[in-house]
Amino acid sequence: MNRQSADISRFQTEIGQLDLPPRLLLGPGPSNAHPRVLQAIGMRQVGHLDPRFIELMNEIQELLRYTWQTENRVTIPVSGTGSAAMEASLANLVEPDDVVLVGVNGYFGERLVDMAGRYGADVRRIDKPWGEVFDADELRSALEEHRPAILALVHAETSTGARQPLEEAGKLCREHDCLLLADTVTSLGGVPLLIDEWGVDAAYSGSQKCLSCPPGISMLTLSKRAMEKFDQRKTKVPNWYLDMSMVGKYWGSERTYHHTAPINMNYALREALRLVAEEGLDARWERHKKNAALLWDGLKDLGLECHVAPEYRLPTLTTVKVPDGVDSKEVSQILLSEYNIEIAAGLGELAGKVWRIGLMGFNSRPENVELLLATLENVLERNQ
Amino acid sequence: MNRQSADISRFQTEIGQLDLPPRLLLGPGPSNAHPRVLQAIGMRQVGHLDPRFIELMNEIQELLRYTWQTENRVTIPVSGTGSAAMEASLANLVEPDDVVLVGVNGYFGERLVDMAGRYGADVRRIDKPWGEVFDADELRSALEEHRPAILALVHAETSTGARQPLEEAGKLCREHDCLLLADTVTSLGGVPLLIDEWGVDAAYSGSQKCLSCPPGISMLTLSKRAMEKFDQRKTKVPNWYLDMSMVGKYWGSERTYHHTAPINMNYALREALRLVAEEGLDARWERHKKNAALLWDGLKDLGLECHVAPEYRLPTLTTVKVPDGVDSKEVSQILLSEYNIEIAAGLGELAGKVWRIGLMGFNSRPENVELLLATLENVLERNQ
Repeated sequence: MNRQSADISRFQTEIGQLDLPPRLLLGPGPSNAHPRVLQAIGMRQVGHLDPRFIELMNEIQELLRYTWQTENRVTIPVSGTGSAAMEASLANLVEPDDVVLVGVNGYFGERLVDMAGRYGADVRRIDKPWGEVFDADELRSALEEHRPAILALVHAETSTGARQPLEEAGKLCREHDCLLLADTVTSLGGVPLLIDEWGVDAAYSGSQKCLSCPPGISMLTLSKRAMEKFDQRKTKVPNWYLDMSMVGKYWGSERTYHHTAPINMNYALREALRLVAEEGLDARWERHKKNAALLWDGLKDLGLECHVAPEYRLPTLTTVKVPDGVDSKEVSQILLSEYNIEIAAGLGELAGKVWRIGLMGFNSRPENVELLLATLENVLERNQ
Repeated sequence: MNRQSADISRFQTEIGQLDLPPRLLLGPGPSNAHPRVLQAIGMRQVGHLDPRFIELMNEIQELLRYTWQTENRVTIPVSGTGSAAMEASLANLVEPDDVVLVGVNGYFGERLVDMAGRYGADVRRIDKPWGEVFDADELRSALEEHRPAILALVHAETSTGARQPLEEAGKLCREHDCLLLADTVTSLGGVPLLIDEWGVDAAYSGSQKCLSCPPGISMLTLSKRAMEKFDQRKTKVPNWYLDMSMVGKYWGSERTYHHTAPINMNYALREALRLVAEEGLDARWERHKKNAALLWDGLKDLGLECHVAPEYRLPTLTTVKVPDGVDSKEVSQILLSEYNIEIAAGLGELAGKVWRIGLMGFNSRPENVELLLATLENVLERNQ
C-alpha cells in the first residue's frame, strides 16, 4: 500500500551517546535543576487522563498557590517555557483595541510590547533606563494619562537585575479600574512575592529559574478580576494552544482533554515546588538574600561594581559592570571552557556593559559564590 | 524593602514523595518512553546557548531529517506538545483570508478547522465518516472547487485509526499551486512516511507516540515552497512563541536567543530519535506492522471487529468496535485498575462505539499484544 523509497537510508546518520559537560549554571537561567527534580523527571509515565495524573495536577496547583501566595482558582502550569506563559496571559486577557500600558525598563518589557501588539492591543509604554524601576507617582500619572485595561510590569527584570516594587501598583490599578499583570519569571521562589496581598491580577513564571526545574513548563495565575475580563471576551482567543477556555477545562473540574500535558515536566515541577514547600518561602527568600549579599561583598572586594541600586537589586540575578578595557565575552568564555561555569553577557542596552550572574534556587549556595569569585578573580587577572 | 505577609504559611501544604503506578500505555498516546530516553531526560542541564547545546540542536535536526526522510532546512523541534507544532504550522503559513481546505474525517481534522479559523483563514472542509479516508479523485475535485492556498490532511487520525494516503496528494497540490500540510503525529517513526518523495510541504508531529519520548516537545518541518509562502507574509505572525522568523534564527545559523529551549526534553528527543536511527526506519515500520497484525488476528479470535478497513488501518493505532451490550468504559477502567493497562475510549463520532489501542514505538512488542489480548479476554468474559 505504501510506496517505499528505493533508498530509505539516504538520510541515515550516526549520532553517539549523549555526553554532556558538567556545567554550573550561574547565568540568568536556566539554573541547575535540583537532583531530586532530575530523579522525578525520569519516572515512568502515566497517561494524561489517568486518575493518578489528575490527582497530581491538583497537587501541583496546591503547591503553586503556596509558592505564589494566592487563592486564585486558575493557578496552573502552561505546557511551554516561560514565554508561553507570558503569551498565555496576554492572549487570554487582551482583546483587540484594549489599551495595554507596559513599563519598559528592560528586555522583557520590550517583549511584552511586541506580544501585546500581536494580539491587537493599543500598546502604550512608559520607559526607564535599563536597571531602574518605576515609582508609584510615575505609575499613577501614566495610568491617568493612558487609562489602560491592563498595566504590565516586570517584577524581576532578568535582563537588568532590577526588582520592580509591586506593593503600590495593585492598589493603583484597582483605583483606575485596570488589571495588573506581572512578569515573575526570575522572582517566583526566590524573592518575596505576594500575589493576593499585593493585588496582582495576572502573573506568569518559568520553571528554570528559582524553582530549579528544567525549562519546558511554566505557570500562570489569574485573579477573579482577570477571569471576569476573560469571561466577557467578545472574540475567540486567537491562540488555540493557550486558550484558557479549553485549557481551564482540563485543569479545572471537568478534566476535558485539550492537549497532552507534558507529563514528565509536570513530575519535575511537582518535585521542584515540593522542595519550595519543604524549605518554606521565608527561609528560601532569606537564603537567596544571604547568598546574594555574599556575592555583592565579594564583587566589591574584586573592585567590581553592581549596575543596579542596592534597594532594587534582585538577589536572584546580579548585573555587574564590566571594567574598562576588559573583554566581557572573553571572560565568560574562559569561565565556561576552563571551569565549566556559565555566566551571561548583557542584553540590549546593556550588551557588552555588564555580566549577568544568577544565584537561583538550588544554585543559591555559598560554595557556588566562593567558586565564582575565585575563578572570576583568576580570569580577570589574566585578562587585564 | 518588601512588605512581607504576616502569615506566609497560610497556603502551606504538604505533598508526599512522587509515587506512580506502573502503567502500560496502550492507548492513543502517550506511549511509554524507552528506558534510554528516561535516562537521557534526567541528565544535568547545559545552558540553552552553550556550544554543546548548539551542537545537540544540530544533531536533533539531522536525526529528524532522517526520521521524516526530508532535506528540509527548517526541520526543528517545537517547544510544546504536538498541538503546539500543529499551531506553529498554521500560525506561520496562514495569512488572513487564505483559503485553507481541511479534510475532516476525525477529531484532529476538526482541530485543524478550529485553529486555521483563529488565524483568519477562509476555512473550507471536505468531510468523510470517521474511519474512512479521501481518495485522489475526491481531493482533486475539492482542490478544483475551492482553489485553496493550503490543503490540510491528517496522515494518521489518532481518533479513528485511519491512514490517509498522501502519495497522490502532494502531486495534486503542486498541480493546483497549493501547499500540502500533513498531521503526522501518530505516524512519524511508526508508519511509512516520506516527506520529500510525497511532496508534503509542512508536517508536524509529537514526541509521545511512535518515538517513545515523553510529551512536551514536538516537531515541525517546512519545505522550500512552504518557506517561500512564509517569506512573503505581509503580516506579522500573530503568535510570538511560535513565530518562525524568530524561532528559525535560534535553530538556524544565527543562534539568536528567542525563548529558553526545553533542554531536558531535547535530550530525551535526541535519544528517542537515535533509537529510530539505530533500528532503521524500514525495520521499525516492519515491526509496527507485524505486531499490529498479531493484535488484529488476536482480536478476531476474541470475536472482535476492527472499525477501519484493512487497507487503511494504522498499525500504530487500532479502533476496535465495542460489542453490543458491553459497557466500553467499564472494560477500560478494569484494565487500568486491575492490570495497570491503559487503552482509550472513542472520541466524537466514535464515543462509546470503539476502544482505541495503540502499539507505538517501544510499546510495539509481541509481549504487550499477548498481555492485552489475555487481559481483555478476561475482562470481556466477566462483563458479558
